[in-house]
Amino acid sequence: MLRMMTFSILILVGGMGSPAALAEANPLPSWNPTLAKQQIIQFVQQTTAQDSPQFVPVAERIAVFDNDGTLWAEQPAYFQLLYAVDQVKALAELHPEWKTQAPFASILKGDIEGVKQSGMEGVMKLVMATHANMTTEQFSRSVERWITTARHPGTGKLYTQMVYQPMLELLNYLRRHEYKTYIVSGGGSEFMRVWVPQVYGIPAEQIIGSTIKTEYKLREGEPEIVRLPEIDFIDDKEGKPVNIHKIIGRRPVIAFGNSDGDLAMLQWTKAGTGPRMSLLLHHTDAEREWAYDKDSSIGHLEKALQLADKEQWIVVDMKQDWNQVYPR
Amino acid sequence: MLRMMTFSILILVGGMGSPAALAEANPLPSWNPTLAKQQIIQFVQQTTAQDSPQFVPVAERIAVFDNDGTLWAEQPAYFQLLYAVDQVKALAELHPEWKTQAPFASILKGDIEGVKQSGMEGVMKLVMATHANMTTEQFSRSVERWITTARHPGTGKLYTQMVYQPMLELLNYLRRHEYKTYIVSGGGSEFMRVWVPQVYGIPAEQIIGSTIKTEYKLREGEPEIVRLPEIDFIDDKEGKPVNIHKIIGRRPVIAFGNSDGDLAMLQWTKAGTGPRMSLLLHHTDAEREWAYDKDSSIGHLEKALQLADKEQWIVVDMKQDWNQVYPR
Repeated sequence: MLRMMTFSILILVGGMGSPAALAEANPLPSWNPTLAKQQIIQFVQQTTAQDSPQFVPVAERIAVFDNDGTLWAEQPAYFQLLYAVDQVKALAELHPEWKTQAPFASILKGDIEGVKQSGMEGVMKLVMATHANMTTEQFSRSVERWITTARHPGTGKLYTQMVYQPMLELLNYLRRHEYKTYIVSGGGSEFMRVWVPQVYGIPAEQIIGSTIKTEYKLREGEPEIVRLPEIDFIDDKEGKPVNIHKIIGRRPVIAFGNSDGDLAMLQWTKAGTGPRMSLLLHHTDAEREWAYDKDSSIGHLEKALQLADKEQWIVVDMKQDWNQVYPR
Repeated sequence: MLRMMTFSILILVGGMGSPAALAEANPLPSWNPTLAKQQIIQFVQQTTAQDSPQFVPVAERIAVFDNDGTLWAEQPAYFQLLYAVDQVKALAELHPEWKTQAPFASILKGDIEGVKQSGMEGVMKLVMATHANMTTEQFSRSVERWITTARHPGTGKLYTQMVYQPMLELLNYLRRHEYKTYIVSGGGSEFMRVWVPQVYGIPAEQIIGSTIKTEYKLREGEPEIVRLPEIDFIDDKEGKPVNIHKIIGRRPVIAFGNSDGDLAMLQWTKAGTGPRMSLLLHHTDAEREWAYDKDSSIGHLEKALQLADKEQWIVVDMKQDWNQVYPR
């Protein structure tokens, strides 16, 4: 009832010249008028118009987005890894042993490829050395300092300026149609919660990511939550639908990813009954961003791209479908 | 902007005779006009009035509720345990070995005390035998059959009729003031998600509980999520603030519990900066419900009650503060 009133007010006050009406006239201005854009708009209209046979009730309108490579860039390495690298450099004086230990030695020599080649084991060591053994508040402050000052080695931009303008528009468009937008990312929940709410308009409780174990304890009578050097859950691959089911408790209507790490999430979403839309962003634009898929370890995309056609996922071609990449 | 418009419309259309205005005139009719009710109403007014020094922005208005013993009854045993007991009885023919194995043998002899005495180990065996090795959909259907037909051994009511009317009113009152209401319970997330949305008006994604591990896999090309016989997380005691931090990502403004299992959650909530309210329901009404605290293994309440005064938690006395227990 409340919702319906709100809706009619919007129509009343929102004449053709209002921002709301303008936004609806061309809801995705950074998207070229190609098939992908048409399919997205058609899907949203069909699932949100009261009289549509494809209508989805508001409570069921869940849209999940991968983060790295889907909402913001991820080259030459996941940005959270670059945060860890910067932390290692800052902490190196306290850890003389790092000069000879992988992956720390590679970092101190400025050899990012060496870090990537140290594999999962190396990355875990790096994460534990830089993300654990502190309170959640100390960690958040550290991320905040970094995200507001550090600059990308290639573009010189703040990392939060390397989010994708077309995706910001899509998030807003979906929310105007009462879709609840979630992030479901392999990145860390607590890393994302520092900056995601302001940058994407997605609140803390709609950010799902990988987690390390934490411990609740009292220190001088004051309760605190401490981050432990132990993995709790890796929110990647099959972990994505598992976590969606565990935390959201319903199957999404829309899922958007860009790599094989998103394959299971796209598959799980699309296999639901009723209207479902799964989308895959293909990085094809070496000029404005990066062009990569099956030969990249970061954002590796191979199986998902092969399956896309058969599974009826929409493949968004960055070069062809977007007229703008980063916000101006 | 949208919210403000909605609000003014409510005032416009909501003259003194409307349901909304009546609800606000006496928002908690099943609560006696005692101190607890006054403190609750005062806190909600002070945290939601725009011009109040205690004002809390809508995005921060998180209220968390324990379930067993806080929103519905929990005697003579947690209702989810009674579900497991009923499942064991139904499956007994397929498991002749249960006749001599604890805790199954106790169940088959109708000895609930024996089940409770089998301790955590017994309960875990019971949970694994009745809650795992099936898809999430099979489990949900099983819970649905039970919750819509099974009756409480003492009252003869459906279990969903043994929710507390004063708490239903409080949930609604908080939501009208744009508090987001969550459940944070030791009970199973998937058990609760079957019936909680309809009964309490709390959506699936705001239900946090204990979980067992699950596995995503393809069966004949169709993805499914299978429940494994392995504990993932026990959402009790220190696990409650840990899970609140992990899943909601912010500290609640209001927390409501009834046992020592809620102590850490009440403490974590109240220790936040700005206005916070922690409440403890004390089961004091042997006539209309049950009277129990430190001598009960179910809903054991001892340390939290001792701490309540010092920590400035509001203790709700069921017998004194509620004029009605179950919905009529």
